Amino acid sequence: MALAMDVAALTRFLDEVFPQVAADFGIEHVAENRLTVRLKVAERHLRPGGTVSGPTMFALADVSVYLAILAQIGPKALAVTTNCSIDFMRKPAAHADMICECRILKLGRVLAVGDCLLYSEGEAAPVARASLTYSIPPER
Amino acid sequence: MALAMDVAALTRFLDEVFPQVAADFGIEHVAENRLTVRLKVAERHLRPGGTVSGPTMFALADVSVYLAILAQIGPKALAVTTNCSIDFMRKPAAHADMICECRILKLGRVLAVGDCLLYSEGEAAPVARASLTYSIPPER
Amino acid sequence: MALAMDVAALTRFLDEVFPQVAADFGIEHVAENRLTVRLKVAERHLRPGGTVSGPTMFALADVSVYLAILAQIGPKALAVTTNCSIDFMRKPAAHADMICECRILKLGRVLAVGDCLLYSEGEAAPVARASLTYSIPPER
Amino acid sequence: MALAMDVAALTRFLDEVFPQVAADFGIEHVAENRLTVRLKVAERHLRPGGTVSGPTMFALADVSVYLAILAQIGPKALAVTTNCSIDFMRKPAAHADMICECRILKLGRVLAVGDCLLYSEGEAAPVARASLTYSIPPER
Repeated sequence: MALAMDVAALTRFLDEVFPQVAADFGIEHVAENRLTVRLKVAERHLRPGGTVSGPTMFALADVSVYLAILAQIGPKALAVTTNCSIDFMRKPAAHADMICECRILKLGRVLAVGDCLLYSEGEAAPVARASLTYSIPPER
Repeated sequence: MALAMDVAALTRFLDEVFPQVAADFGIEHVAENRLTVRLKVAERHLRPGGTVSGPTMFALADVSVYLAILAQIGPKALAVTTNCSIDFMRKPAAHADMICECRILKLGRVLAVGDCLLYSEGEAAPVARASLTYSIPPER
Repeated sequence: MALAMDVAALTRFLDEVFPQVAADFGIEHVAENRLTVRLKVAERHLRPGGTVSGPTMFALADVSVYLAILAQIGPKALAVTTNCSIDFMRKPAAHADMICECRILKLGRVLAVGDCLLYSEGEAAPVARASLTYSIPPER
Repeated sequence: MALAMDVAALTRFLDEVFPQVAADFGIEHVAENRLTVRLKVAERHLRPGGTVSGPTMFALADVSVYLAILAQIGPKALAVTTNCSIDFMRKPAAHADMICECRILKLGRVLAVGDCLLYSEGEAAPVARASLTYSIPPER
């Protein structure tokens, strides 16, 4: 299956549709059912101690699966998150960017499922693991 | 079991330890193993269309369980979220505050578990459901 | 909304469609968006030490949400579980039946969400918590 | 880190400690933080239509993460499941064995986290995805 959107198209889409958060994220790589997103860590993402907050990691996983779905089906879909399960396994490195490696496990007519591993840049052990379900509206 | 912290003590704690986010939340009610938190919705919490974003709802559930644990065990604990499962069930009402009703289901020596229902203020049907596990460090 | 199936109708349905497991469960009570199911504990449900196994608790939560959905929409639906998140919080009492208190939080056109608390009979503190999503096929 | 238990040692352990379920599972492969388990599908695992039941898939994921932890830390540990999140993504193939590919993502002093993909044998697309947390008692 050819990709419906490449890095440039996904980046433009994010800028246009989610201008509030687009500056937080850099799409690094996209392939069939795979996507890598960088969180450009800034002061507003941090907790005391300089580590990335839980809600910011949730946001990173959420946007990554969303973009990985759009890469496959194109920008028309108004997909919405219906479920997320996230495990916080290690403390993030202080003031480091985070890298989210995402894969799509199912892309159905109605539901899509993806999972992610989140890393502090330069570290081998993942900071968090997340799996998400998106509901894809019938009108596409 | 008497409460270790009341609404005033929890509010002061949140202001001191999490000044970045304290203004987002108002602790409305606390009782044994129960806590109610208001998300004071502002522009930065919204997605296109004026509805509260997923990461903001995650943050609301996360802080609610955290505060409900501290209400029981006091401000010394450096509890950290280890797992969250969240179901997004309905679209939030546009520009309405959100109310999070939280209960503690287990408060063990090492792990605590709580769950939450999140409502748009004035609506009877919940917008989201979340359950969270916190790890409580041994040094307390 | 009137119930589409009462305790007797749900019990007959379970006997007919899931004869392999129907003897494990007793439907105790049904109301709008609420259902109580008993697990009739037998040797095959137990782990060493005489406590109910994790897969058995999963099965109890799963069947409870399924039956609570059918109580609302009737026996025609071929609903399938798409997600379950379960927290095991305490050790079950040895050789006691388990009681599952289930509520439906959302009953949409495509997805239904319910959650459960599981108790060892006679104990006040829940043994486990579960939330499940069911997909409801369009053909109903 | 050298493995504490190989396939033969894990198989003996399962036979001795969980004789009720040991015949259901075959440990196929073990490596550092990796384990593959086969579910030997029998009539008792099936739902109408000949597909593996949800509780059976839960049991397969649960035992796989458990054995993958023991492979690292040895047979002394009385690890207990504290959380499982599972996504059922596709219908299993009728009457086929299932293969569970498991990896350990974190092996801490107190908590271990693993995730799994479950396949019907011979199929490329996963039937289910699961992530589990185990609590490791301090006495080890």
